[in-house]
Amino acid sequence: MATTTKQAYTPLNEQTVIELSQELDLFSDYSSLEVNEIGDGNLNLVFRLVEPATKKSVIIKQALPYAKVVGESWPLTLDRARIESDSLKKFAEFSPEHVPEILYTNNELAVTVMEDLSSHVILRKGLIDGVTYPSLAQHIGTFIAKNLFYTSDFYLHPFEKKRLVQQFTNPELCKITEDLVFTDPFYDIETNDYPAELQDAVSELWNDATLRNKATRLKLKFLTHAEALLHGDLHSGSIFVTEESTKIIDSEFAYYGPQGFDIAHFFANIAMNHIAQRAHIKDKEKRAEYQLYLSGLIRDTWNTFTDTYKGLWRNEGVELATKLPGFEDEVLESIFTDMVGFAGCEVIRRTIGLAHVADLDSIADFDEQILLKKKALKLGRDWVKNKQRIKNIEEFITSIRSV
Amino acid sequence: MATTTKQAYTPLNEQTVIELSQELDLFSDYSSLEVNEIGDGNLNLVFRLVEPATKKSVIIKQALPYAKVVGESWPLTLDRARIESDSLKKFAEFSPEHVPEILYTNNELAVTVMEDLSSHVILRKGLIDGVTYPSLAQHIGTFIAKNLFYTSDFYLHPFEKKRLVQQFTNPELCKITEDLVFTDPFYDIETNDYPAELQDAVSELWNDATLRNKATRLKLKFLTHAEALLHGDLHSGSIFVTEESTKIIDSEFAYYGPQGFDIAHFFANIAMNHIAQRAHIKDKEKRAEYQLYLSGLIRDTWNTFTDTYKGLWRNEGVELATKLPGFEDEVLESIFTDMVGFAGCEVIRRTIGLAHVADLDSIADFDEQILLKKKALKLGRDWVKNKQRIKNIEEFITSIRSV
Repeated sequence: MATTTKQAYTPLNEQTVIELSQELDLFSDYSSLEVNEIGDGNLNLVFRLVEPATKKSVIIKQALPYAKVVGESWPLTLDRARIESDSLKKFAEFSPEHVPEILYTNNELAVTVMEDLSSHVILRKGLIDGVTYPSLAQHIGTFIAKNLFYTSDFYLHPFEKKRLVQQFTNPELCKITEDLVFTDPFYDIETNDYPAELQDAVSELWNDATLRNKATRLKLKFLTHAEALLHGDLHSGSIFVTEESTKIIDSEFAYYGPQGFDIAHFFANIAMNHIAQRAHIKDKEKRAEYQLYLSGLIRDTWNTFTDTYKGLWRNEGVELATKLPGFEDEVLESIFTDMVGFAGCEVIRRTIGLAHVADLDSIADFDEQILLKKKALKLGRDWVKNKQRIKNIEEFITSIRSV
Repeated sequence: MATTTKQAYTPLNEQTVIELSQELDLFSDYSSLEVNEIGDGNLNLVFRLVEPATKKSVIIKQALPYAKVVGESWPLTLDRARIESDSLKKFAEFSPEHVPEILYTNNELAVTVMEDLSSHVILRKGLIDGVTYPSLAQHIGTFIAKNLFYTSDFYLHPFEKKRLVQQFTNPELCKITEDLVFTDPFYDIETNDYPAELQDAVSELWNDATLRNKATRLKLKFLTHAEALLHGDLHSGSIFVTEESTKIIDSEFAYYGPQGFDIAHFFANIAMNHIAQRAHIKDKEKRAEYQLYLSGLIRDTWNTFTDTYKGLWRNEGVELATKLPGFEDEVLESIFTDMVGFAGCEVIRRTIGLAHVADLDSIADFDEQILLKKKALKLGRDWVKNKQRIKNIEEFITSIRSV
């Protein structure tokens, strides 16, 4: 891996990004290099560089020192580039096939050069379009199980675990989750964003003291339980897919947190797609078929996750806890219960909070959009409040299917 | 506060410690300075320096790069001197009256210069001698409540909380607790230390699968729950007392952990003294009276702790959780339940683990010592296994009194 001398941060442009690629010796012919900035400009610059003769391409991603959301802009640490590349490298130790290859990082410039995944599509888009991905459950279940187990106290020496907790201390990005996922949607706070037609449902939610209590307890878990290295934002927009390949990206929210968090976000986003399909697929039979695929995706992901986790526990467990009869079942039960609660928070915040999902927002028929968002809110509330009553993955799936 | 230039670590001796005191301008007349090394030589050098003319005295404590226990010696990080002085300074922000004043620290030399507390006695000695301390409950309850609340997410900005978690990352000392408190006593591991007469009770304990399961769950809390800055080793040997003054020392085990931990260790050590008094105070009436004092000490400490904690919560809570009706009661209930479990582990490990307590070990009548240690073991097991069944401080006290 090449290294360059330490430089002061300055945003790249189409000229300097070519110079950087030259410095890193990424291509052979720089005169014909095609450069496109394909980021949305709100958080990062994302340059795609292609050498036409060889078809060789790379992505050069650079964090911007601010975040822009719906016109608002606030400063945001460049350290997130380090967190993202460090976590992708850590995940690559366990699942190299499920993360983009990192070719170069420069923490001062907040730059990461990585494999170009433009042969893939963003999972959220694929799901909205009703595409099925036969290997996705297997890939995500394995990816999460390995990340959790291999970075936990069950596997790591406590010194190494504590070193990683320090390395992945991520206050600014965690604060975004603490606010936008666990706090703002449960209070009348200006970051919330929902149409007036949802006001009754939102007011009811804000007046639900039990819900607020349970969401707060989940927030405290997020704040204090340093169990394993999480991706931290594993929704369907952080996953690139093809029929046979799954790549996880955008891990700048990575930190040590509660084990149930990542799988919760994945499931919550599948569930919202499931709800939204009532609007997207008009043909009833086709819709039923696709929703069955989505249920199966959740079931298979969970079962792959638990099977993989148990296998690692049995074969590679180091901490004496892994030798206790049945202890892994208790751990997995507690991951499951946390998962239901965290998934509930994610569904609620994606419906009425600052950051929405295209699955629901793209529903053209406004009345139907409102109706389905109300259903999503109801499901999210149920998960947060009654997470202990949902006992297993089948009951979780039933709760989605009976929306 | 004086600063000296960075020096390589070398253990102090009676000559160099005077030179250091001179460099720091601690006294006016160095020719007549009295120096005594009063440490036990197992972990730290502890020099007491007295200027006879003025009666001025200070303690100069230096960590040694190893730990010695019963002849064994193993390397141990000098960073514990930093942890100790940093945590004492942090505690002094909330309770300056309950920690020794820190006059100087040097992390390279692992040296701390602090207030001399030789007017005080170690609480364990006082309790073994049957002395009562009328302000102790008030002091300890307040000290713990302030430490927990002011270093928690309920009060601190999440950036500051996470900065402190990093600052007090303490892998080597935590590992000692992970091993000696939560692991070794529950397995046939060579660090354990108990007379052959306890073998039956110990074997029964090792065969108790439920106990091992519950102890492991407590260990996982210790490993993963970064709730508040703990002293980390708050037994009666870490507390200096007079009739009206209470000073907490030896906080080299400080780290961010579960809130119930410190008060558990304090109570466990009071409980072991309570059990041991059957041997120490022969006069039945006097013994009953002293044991009543010890019960009251636990009750008053707990009530002071909860009252103080609730007051801080009400008046200084920042996190929105502190505005939720009744939420502080849920937090305190969960601290209480954790406390019972952690206290159980402490009683067990002090009875059969590597590090014992003089309260029990000093019982001259060997048969009685064995009998009382068996009772202590039974109590510890009950606390670890049935912590959820003990609902409040009165039931906790009853469990001690009915030993």
